[in-house]
Amino acid sequence: MKMTLAEIAVFLGGAVVGAGNTVIENIRPIEEANEGDITFIANKKYLKRLKLTKASAVLVPPKTDAEGKNLIVVDDPYVALGKLLAFFYPLEHGGSGISPDAYIEESATVSPEATIFPGVFIGKGATIGKRAVIYPGVFIGRNSFIGEDSILYSNVVVYHSCIIGQRVILHSGVVIGADGFGFASPGKSNIKIPQVGIVQIDDDVEIGANTTVDRAALGKTWIQRNVKIDNLVQIAHNVVIGENSVITAQVGISGSTKLGKSVMVGGQTGMVGHIEIGDNVMIAADSKIHRNIKSGEIVGGKPHMPYKEYLQVEACQSKLPEMRAKLKNLEKKVDELFKK
Amino acid sequence: MKMTLAEIAVFLGGAVVGAGNTVIENIRPIEEANEGDITFIANKKYLKRLKLTKASAVLVPPKTDAEGKNLIVVDDPYVALGKLLAFFYPLEHGGSGISPDAYIEESATVSPEATIFPGVFIGKGATIGKRAVIYPGVFIGRNSFIGEDSILYSNVVVYHSCIIGQRVILHSGVVIGADGFGFASPGKSNIKIPQVGIVQIDDDVEIGANTTVDRAALGKTWIQRNVKIDNLVQIAHNVVIGENSVITAQVGISGSTKLGKSVMVGGQTGMVGHIEIGDNVMIAADSKIHRNIKSGEIVGGKPHMPYKEYLQVEACQSKLPEMRAKLKNLEKKVDELFKK
Amino acid sequence: MKMTLAEIAVFLGGAVVGAGNTVIENIRPIEEANEGDITFIANKKYLKRLKLTKASAVLVPPKTDAEGKNLIVVDDPYVALGKLLAFFYPLEHGGSGISPDAYIEESATVSPEATIFPGVFIGKGATIGKRAVIYPGVFIGRNSFIGEDSILYSNVVVYHSCIIGQRVILHSGVVIGADGFGFASPGKSNIKIPQVGIVQIDDDVEIGANTTVDRAALGKTWIQRNVKIDNLVQIAHNVVIGENSVITAQVGISGSTKLGKSVMVGGQTGMVGHIEIGDNVMIAADSKIHRNIKSGEIVGGKPHMPYKEYLQVEACQSKLPEMRAKLKNLEKKVDELFKK
Repeated sequence: MKMTLAEIAVFLGGAVVGAGNTVIENIRPIEEANEGDITFIANKKYLKRLKLTKASAVLVPPKTDAEGKNLIVVDDPYVALGKLLAFFYPLEHGGSGISPDAYIEESATVSPEATIFPGVFIGKGATIGKRAVIYPGVFIGRNSFIGEDSILYSNVVVYHSCIIGQRVILHSGVVIGADGFGFASPGKSNIKIPQVGIVQIDDDVEIGANTTVDRAALGKTWIQRNVKIDNLVQIAHNVVIGENSVITAQVGISGSTKLGKSVMVGGQTGMVGHIEIGDNVMIAADSKIHRNIKSGEIVGGKPHMPYKEYLQVEACQSKLPEMRAKLKNLEKKVDELFKK
Repeated sequence: MKMTLAEIAVFLGGAVVGAGNTVIENIRPIEEANEGDITFIANKKYLKRLKLTKASAVLVPPKTDAEGKNLIVVDDPYVALGKLLAFFYPLEHGGSGISPDAYIEESATVSPEATIFPGVFIGKGATIGKRAVIYPGVFIGRNSFIGEDSILYSNVVVYHSCIIGQRVILHSGVVIGADGFGFASPGKSNIKIPQVGIVQIDDDVEIGANTTVDRAALGKTWIQRNVKIDNLVQIAHNVVIGENSVITAQVGISGSTKLGKSVMVGGQTGMVGHIEIGDNVMIAADSKIHRNIKSGEIVGGKPHMPYKEYLQVEACQSKLPEMRAKLKNLEKKVDELFKK
Repeated sequence: MKMTLAEIAVFLGGAVVGAGNTVIENIRPIEEANEGDITFIANKKYLKRLKLTKASAVLVPPKTDAEGKNLIVVDDPYVALGKLLAFFYPLEHGGSGISPDAYIEESATVSPEATIFPGVFIGKGATIGKRAVIYPGVFIGRNSFIGEDSILYSNVVVYHSCIIGQRVILHSGVVIGADGFGFASPGKSNIKIPQVGIVQIDDDVEIGANTTVDRAALGKTWIQRNVKIDNLVQIAHNVVIGENSVITAQVGISGSTKLGKSVMVGGQTGMVGHIEIGDNVMIAADSKIHRNIKSGEIVGGKPHMPYKEYLQVEACQSKLPEMRAKLKNLEKKVDELFKK
């Protein structure tokens, strides 16, 4: 694709500084960019790189000083980059229509505007909305619902009776609706409790590769609107994740735990079951959460504590042997003093 | 489904308190239950909820006091719930027979009573037992064996020569029998050691979505009878897990480690290789196990220690900065005392 | 297979001690080996087992003393075992040719020497090299490239435009090239940044079951030559892993982090994004890495520290309650001393 800087500025609602007739053909990272490329700096701390780049133009935040460079000034260069990427490199799924090599059971309802690749299985009573794209090897169980414009990449599995909203993206290997882990008399007879609830995933959710979201025992496991979940995350039965929350890779959330809106969870964090995390909570990576957290708190550690305290505690770890030695030494000295 | 309380009591072997002719149509969680619903309390600490519920009836343990409520008194309400759920909402796989769209290699033996969905691949010499249900996209390698009444959900993979017992449930994305992680001269030439052993999974095992169980280098990786494993767990080559053990999500068990019977392992725990964990051991979530554990021990932490000690150690973490400050202060004071 | 000890010694370039005409039929672990079996000891600390084994012969390192046993002395018994296993139990994929039941889009280029099983999907413009083996249920996206002699086990997914080298092994459930986790205004509007880069995997890499390697935002995520990655590992966008490195199960590496050559990473370790790990670094299991590590360092812990220090810090953990009590006691005593 070829566009002039002036055209790009109009498209992004930004302002050109420099030669508006510069032609842009590609978008590249700042260190790799060359003539014909546009790049970006999201943050003024990368100003140094801005001076060194060979890019033909740079997306920058307001009040960025860069003599002799062609710039497009935008409010948020990262958001502008996202828009420009989508325009320069539109996502193409490369299929269309309903493949005769898909297995669609009777009484399933598939929109004729959907794209169903070969090797897809759609069970009885399932519904696939308009413009949904279902890649090869996807399984959609009986009576499950896939909303309009959703994309299910290859080998996603949606068990029966689950509800997936509109514009949802499920990456390959995601498993929605497997049985929750519920057994009576655990460690002894391990009697299976049937998991008869469902999973509901609201609009605009994106879930990363090989993440698992278990169906509820009773009721529903619920991922609310615009939640973003990374790869290899475990969401247990009856968990609720509030809208706009962001869950990083390899997090595990145990049964019936409820997260509020706009919660941010760092990678490899674990949460016990049956607790409540308030709105706008931020949790540092590798935290282990054992009790409720109030809205707005920023926490970290095991057990979790306010983030600032957590940093101090972390800083103490490497001092432990020294502390132990000092303590021993002090004990000796104090004994000496008593003997005086 | 409609049943009277009296009928349900007979089915569960319990006793009605209240109106035996009450009609029950659904099973719901205690907060959501309404007229026509039965619910349960597994534990007397939820007595408060019992008073507030709008459910038409409640499964309760013996000696539960709840005036004006219809009750069914059973020894273990959670077990009773399991039975009732299975009766009200029977699991239906929605298929039957051997699909002509499955790929079954010559010399595979598939019971005519098995259900084989489209898109299944069954390799040479493999055996599928009576009433087994094999969902779309499942791969069963050469000479592998799937026992009677086992269920393999969509996109499960069983590599060649593995043995799966009866009534085993493998959830979607489970991989049985991939190569163990064995390399000579690691970090240098990384020479692959062929993994020529197998995986054996005994009767009544259930394994959660996207869990991986590697084949042995030599001999077998062995998951014994009635073990329950949650999602995203890593079981390395030559591991043995004793019967009735319960392994929670995201646990990792390294090569050749052996767990006894009825071991309970909390989520995100890690174990090094070549160690032995005795029978009836309980391990807290996120523990890191570096050495053998004797039968009957309850442990937690990194490195692991008796659970009670572990709780005390955890309680100290947030005190570390204060301890460090106190230590510094004491040193000053002791120096002063020496100068006196 | 039957071979004499003398023949095996020639094959391995080793020396027979004992009866060279002994016939070997199988390779078994030292405790299970019997007549007709050859076994091995990789390390002299297992000499005891050597005396007790019923094996007909044992692969041993130089200068191993074992009267009355048939031995083959080799420089590295573990490497020799690998060679012998590959010879005794050759890997057979059990298929050949291009299945008419694979879905191959027009303009894909598949070598007639490749093995393509039923149910494989190969997108437009993709290339499959000579002798590559593509198992059932594998998805290869548009314009992706699979090099010669590579093996993709069942249900592997390679998104579009990715490059897989020669002799690469991808185990079942591996997902290559799903979108990196990139959102502007996270926790608020969560605006998706299109991930338009690729994944490049160089020759001789092996990746374990259900591991995920995300495509780059821009540019490439890059796994270099002969890297070995275990199961359930998360590799985020724009990560680079240097050649010969070894990454154990359940590790998570965040975006844009770069590992040097021959780095060894223990299981369940986590790394933040945008850091650099030098060559030959070793990282203990369950470490949490927050900053750069210089070449040659051996580290562990959270936050990481030199491995020897880390062991001391670990040893202090269980002493914390005692330290706290001692500190309290000392404070009292020092107060007393001041009152004197």
